Amino acid sequence: MLDIVRTVATLRDQVDEWRRAGQRIALVPTMGALHAGHLSLVHQGRETCDRVVATIFVNPAQFGPSEDFATYPRGEADDVTKLEAAGVDLLFAPDVGEMYPENFATNVTVSGITDCLCGLSRPGFFDGVATVVSKLLLQALPDVAVFGDKDYQQLLVIRRVVRDLNIPVDIIGAPTVREQDGLALSSRNAYLGTAERQQAAALFRSLGTAAENIETGRGEPEAETAAALQRLTESGFTKIDYFELRDAETLAPAVNLQRPSRLFAAAWLGATRLIDNVSVAARAIPN
Amino acid sequence: MLDIVRTVATLRDQVDEWRRAGQRIALVPTMGALHAGHLSLVHQGRETCDRVVATIFVNPAQFGPSEDFATYPRGEADDVTKLEAAGVDLLFAPDVGEMYPENFATNVTVSGITDCLCGLSRPGFFDGVATVVSKLLLQALPDVAVFGDKDYQQLLVIRRVVRDLNIPVDIIGAPTVREQDGLALSSRNAYLGTAERQQAAALFRSLGTAAENIETGRGEPEAETAAALQRLTESGFTKIDYFELRDAETLAPAVNLQRPSRLFAAAWLGATRLIDNVSVAARAIPN
Repeated sequence: MLDIVRTVATLRDQVDEWRRAGQRIALVPTMGALHAGHLSLVHQGRETCDRVVATIFVNPAQFGPSEDFATYPRGEADDVTKLEAAGVDLLFAPDVGEMYPENFATNVTVSGITDCLCGLSRPGFFDGVATVVSKLLLQALPDVAVFGDKDYQQLLVIRRVVRDLNIPVDIIGAPTVREQDGLALSSRNAYLGTAERQQAAALFRSLGTAAENIETGRGEPEAETAAALQRLTESGFTKIDYFELRDAETLAPAVNLQRPSRLFAAAWLGATRLIDNVSVAARAIPN
Repeated sequence: MLDIVRTVATLRDQVDEWRRAGQRIALVPTMGALHAGHLSLVHQGRETCDRVVATIFVNPAQFGPSEDFATYPRGEADDVTKLEAAGVDLLFAPDVGEMYPENFATNVTVSGITDCLCGLSRPGFFDGVATVVSKLLLQALPDVAVFGDKDYQQLLVIRRVVRDLNIPVDIIGAPTVREQDGLALSSRNAYLGTAERQQAAALFRSLGTAAENIETGRGEPEAETAAALQRLTESGFTKIDYFELRDAETLAPAVNLQRPSRLFAAAWLGATRLIDNVSVAARAIPN
């Protein structure tokens, strides 16, 4: 049976016991509503560690006032079944009071790499992420923590916080897991109606086409982006927050295509906001 | 000989070795220019721990553009002699590049308790403190860390950060060490000329008088504060940033004198800003 703990004190007791036994611990923070993408993070943790701790916490601090905190999918029993089958050793599922006690007043913020993409369309989101992930890392004190490439800007923010604050953990990024038609797995895919679900695959298709054309030099970023925006609109996307090529490390606009870059998209199908991203290899330097 | 390390990696190696040997570690963060106040923090650390690590880092991030970062007293050789005599086991004295590597972008901020007192007169100061102290704690990972009551608002900010971010350390506050005439020891006392040094004692005298009158009911906060401001001006203080009674825990204005409160002062003698504070016991509840 998968052990479930609700308090930081019991979480630490268990992790301490494993550490004293010389075991390495991986942490997989989630907001629940688990899918194969999350479980791939668990497998990734297993590869380098003896124990995997998963966390489920729908963090109110990373939702804006008009966002979907209230309706975000929740179902602990199903999640527990999946985590147990994936070989997770411990689930930490605190309530809001355990995470944000009375007079909670501290915020972890990251500048620069949060000034674009989801940082613009979701104000306060990355402050909420940086703060709660700092807390989870310091509560569990794992050797490694695993996050998905799907939320690539979030992954960069977490790497930056960990480096800047000297949090003693290795951050591992794991490849995005996709449906057959390419749609990136996301808990929010559950919001999509049948027609929207079919339209949704256009997001990854547009990213893939643009990335390939840019990589090979068949197209330039500006024209490829414009074409992708048109395709997405034609495919039924009702609003596009961004579709941008950015430096894979700094997230600065990718002007020099001889560095690795990444193509990022966020777009809406009705009331559902989807995000995705793909890598764009550096172009060969011309002779 | 006192070992001096300059990098986080060597600091952690030494602390890890002690921890594996079952020893407890105390951290005493300082900005150098050490005096008996700092050494009392070392002694406090010694009381509960096997090893004491001191840090010296004049943190640029906690100085405002018009403040005294450039002229802040520095003298590592003298400091090393004092730390060694006090029984410190290790000195961590990093340079700015080790603390703030390229593209450093993370900030730890605390709201509420930073919106008054030094938070008003030194904008950005507590962000700088919260960030650098978080870093030092996570770099060294001590069992306890010791800070002085002299910087009482700073002590509260650090306690809040540690609780809110779940940094695994116990914070100990140590009593203010004073000169014979009551002046709180401070590295900045070195800025005072001979006449100013004599005038400076009025700060603690004013605090003590007002605190006693408020505690005993001989005077009310408003009248006591007004009297203290006048005494300070008469004693040669050229500017008073604040002289205020506040709740000892929340720093809210102390309206209910049946809770422990604290009297805080910051005032200038010429170009030197001095701060001090004293406790004000709760008044007995009338029958």
